[in-house]
Amino acid sequence: MTEENRAVPPQKETGRLEAFSDGVFAVAITLLVLDLIKVPQAPEGQTFSAADLAAILGRQWPAYATFLISFATILILWMNHHSMFQWVQKNDPVFMFANGFLLLLITLVPFPTALLGDYLLEPAAPAAAAMYAGLFVVISIAFIVLWWTAAYRRPLLRPGIAPALIRQRTFANLLGFPVYVLALACAFWSPALTVGICAALWVFWAITSARL
Amino acid sequence: MTEENRAVPPQKETGRLEAFSDGVFAVAITLLVLDLIKVPQAPEGQTFSAADLAAILGRQWPAYATFLISFATILILWMNHHSMFQWVQKNDPVFMFANGFLLLLITLVPFPTALLGDYLLEPAAPAAAAMYAGLFVVISIAFIVLWWTAAYRRPLLRPGIAPALIRQRTFANLLGFPVYVLALACAFWSPALTVGICAALWVFWAITSARL
Amino acid sequence: MTEENRAVPPQKETGRLEAFSDGVFAVAITLLVLDLIKVPQAPEGQTFSAADLAAILGRQWPAYATFLISFATILILWMNHHSMFQWVQKNDPVFMFANGFLLLLITLVPFPTALLGDYLLEPAAPAAAAMYAGLFVVISIAFIVLWWTAAYRRPLLRPGIAPALIRQRTFANLLGFPVYVLALACAFWSPALTVGICAALWVFWAITSARL
Amino acid sequence: MTEENRAVPPQKETGRLEAFSDGVFAVAITLLVLDLIKVPQAPEGQTFSAADLAAILGRQWPAYATFLISFATILILWMNHHSMFQWVQKNDPVFMFANGFLLLLITLVPFPTALLGDYLLEPAAPAAAAMYAGLFVVISIAFIVLWWTAAYRRPLLRPGIAPALIRQRTFANLLGFPVYVLALACAFWSPALTVGICAALWVFWAITSARL
Repeated sequence: MTEENRAVPPQKETGRLEAFSDGVFAVAITLLVLDLIKVPQAPEGQTFSAADLAAILGRQWPAYATFLISFATILILWMNHHSMFQWVQKNDPVFMFANGFLLLLITLVPFPTALLGDYLLEPAAPAAAAMYAGLFVVISIAFIVLWWTAAYRRPLLRPGIAPALIRQRTFANLLGFPVYVLALACAFWSPALTVGICAALWVFWAITSARL
Repeated sequence: MTEENRAVPPQKETGRLEAFSDGVFAVAITLLVLDLIKVPQAPEGQTFSAADLAAILGRQWPAYATFLISFATILILWMNHHSMFQWVQKNDPVFMFANGFLLLLITLVPFPTALLGDYLLEPAAPAAAAMYAGLFVVISIAFIVLWWTAAYRRPLLRPGIAPALIRQRTFANLLGFPVYVLALACAFWSPALTVGICAALWVFWAITSARL
Repeated sequence: MTEENRAVPPQKETGRLEAFSDGVFAVAITLLVLDLIKVPQAPEGQTFSAADLAAILGRQWPAYATFLISFATILILWMNHHSMFQWVQKNDPVFMFANGFLLLLITLVPFPTALLGDYLLEPAAPAAAAMYAGLFVVISIAFIVLWWTAAYRRPLLRPGIAPALIRQRTFANLLGFPVYVLALACAFWSPALTVGICAALWVFWAITSARL
Repeated sequence: MTEENRAVPPQKETGRLEAFSDGVFAVAITLLVLDLIKVPQAPEGQTFSAADLAAILGRQWPAYATFLISFATILILWMNHHSMFQWVQKNDPVFMFANGFLLLLITLVPFPTALLGDYLLEPAAPAAAAMYAGLFVVISIAFIVLWWTAAYRRPLLRPGIAPALIRQRTFANLLGFPVYVLALACAFWSPALTVGICAALWVFWAITSARL
């Protein structure tokens, strides 16, 4: 992976890494719906009327809400990943491990999403919300680490990117961490607030991502 | 994502966006079958004869029918997406969000498909058919929005496409919406008609897509 | 999709079609294992010894055998698809629909595989084996149709391929159909023979594919 | 697949093989989490407190631990695969079959992972640990075979790679086999040691992969 690649055009060095990452993001974001595919079953010997089925589906709204927030968040993370990799030219085992650690966390997102969808209105909501926010705390750390391995540890970025732009991205990445820690802290007091902060952070990331 | 990309050949700007979209379409279209993988289990202490098993599988025909319509519709949507992206040269955060909104809806398709497959012959069919048609109403809106962000909001298309062709595609995209609204309205009166309209629209889209 | 593409290098015209197909093949071949993930659960109040667990896993061998045959067959089908597309230069809506029809059938493979894995040693085996072989009958037809749309209907192949090689591939594609029909006919008499013919055909396809 | 490809630039010959492999790796690594998505359900008529839910989730730690080891191992295997394919220029049916055999084993990883996650603390742990280590024994053989078809059977590597580097990779690939055999042998005596050896080997592979 060292001098043999010199002949390959430099913009190609992360091609397969991006393809693999895209695959993991795409599968993880599509698996979110598997939690929603709980087609309600009528009890033995009964049949649902249309109103029954509509009412049952309506009561599943916490699952739909957490699905929406998780989908939107993974989408933003992918866009951030995509935008970051447009600046990366070279590759590196440490960078690949940092990326792999991020992908591990992305594949985990469906699990606390399903948990929160089931328990948001139950007494156990604080535990579910804490697990949900806790995962995003770790994801925000993983993004900081990934960006550090790309931009600060060894020069993997392509030349000619203005230092001000690099600092701007560093700052945007650092902001996620304290907000998710706040969301985690709120989980024990108000799980709904945790969900609200995660949704609000999505709006913030959307705007940030649009500006970069 | 702004001036740094100027050096990259313009036709490459949506490469990873297309790869990610392809991944989501491919996973969503393949997950449809998971609803079909309900291998019938004989009751405790009994065994099925071949005729029993064949009869049970035959009675699952609504699940097969909705699978076929959903698969064909996602395939057409992908072909439409593919054909639209052949005209798109540049990228844009708003375009990426519009695309992400479409992908969200695509990943949802397996859910109402499973619901309709289970309830098509039950009294609750109107609720299931309304949810099915309702999702495609929103999908047709998402396609109109995506095309608007690509062709009308800011010039993301590559130069040299005849305005008549652009208008033709705009018209084709607009047609889906009223037909799916009609299918939704029929759901409360005749769920079978809803399914029939969705299937017929697929034929129409197939012909439209072949002409573009 | 008509004259606008003339400027694009011709070998690129099927790029996204191949990527989407690869995605569907990859997801379908990986979903086969979901049928195997039936971790045995000890009855309430009991625990398995290591010998119990090993014995239970050993009794699942029909599921392992059908998994192996289905995986190997999808792999061969992908290799055949890959090898066919190396000759295809242009694209065409009819070709895309023929490819979509093949993909539909590929995503279905996990369903009769799971069915056969559960019922191979049961009285219902003929129905399961007939469904399994029947799907591959339709897949062999879909491959003949796909090749016809690529090589005979309109000239989508790149120039310079020797007619003898085209005829050789046509012949190889035609051979699958009668053998799978034979496997289907055997299902009602000996399901094990059906499975044996499907496994034997895999060996034949492997050799054919290696020669092309 | 023979003389027709001579005109294609040589570095492109394995493009679709890599894309398909990436898809299978990405789906398999993401499916690992499906085993974790067992949202605990409170018994009929009871509700969980947050402490109950946290305690139940905490008791699932063997599933989390095996998930982590399996994810990290598939990631390393992908990195090894990626790094190996950077040296491969040509393609070959035998090489494609060797790659397909490796992919088959990769898709199997979620199954013994789920098994080990459920039985690590049970009397049946030796059988589960033996199946887990046994799969990795076969995977290490598949990697040796794949490398042999690429580097020794016929010259598929691109020219100019130093023989010392080729020998170094051969040696690294050979090392996995005896260690996994050791892990397999330990399963019958101490399943925890089996898991420990698999985790330790991951660290070793990480370092080896970083050096290559």
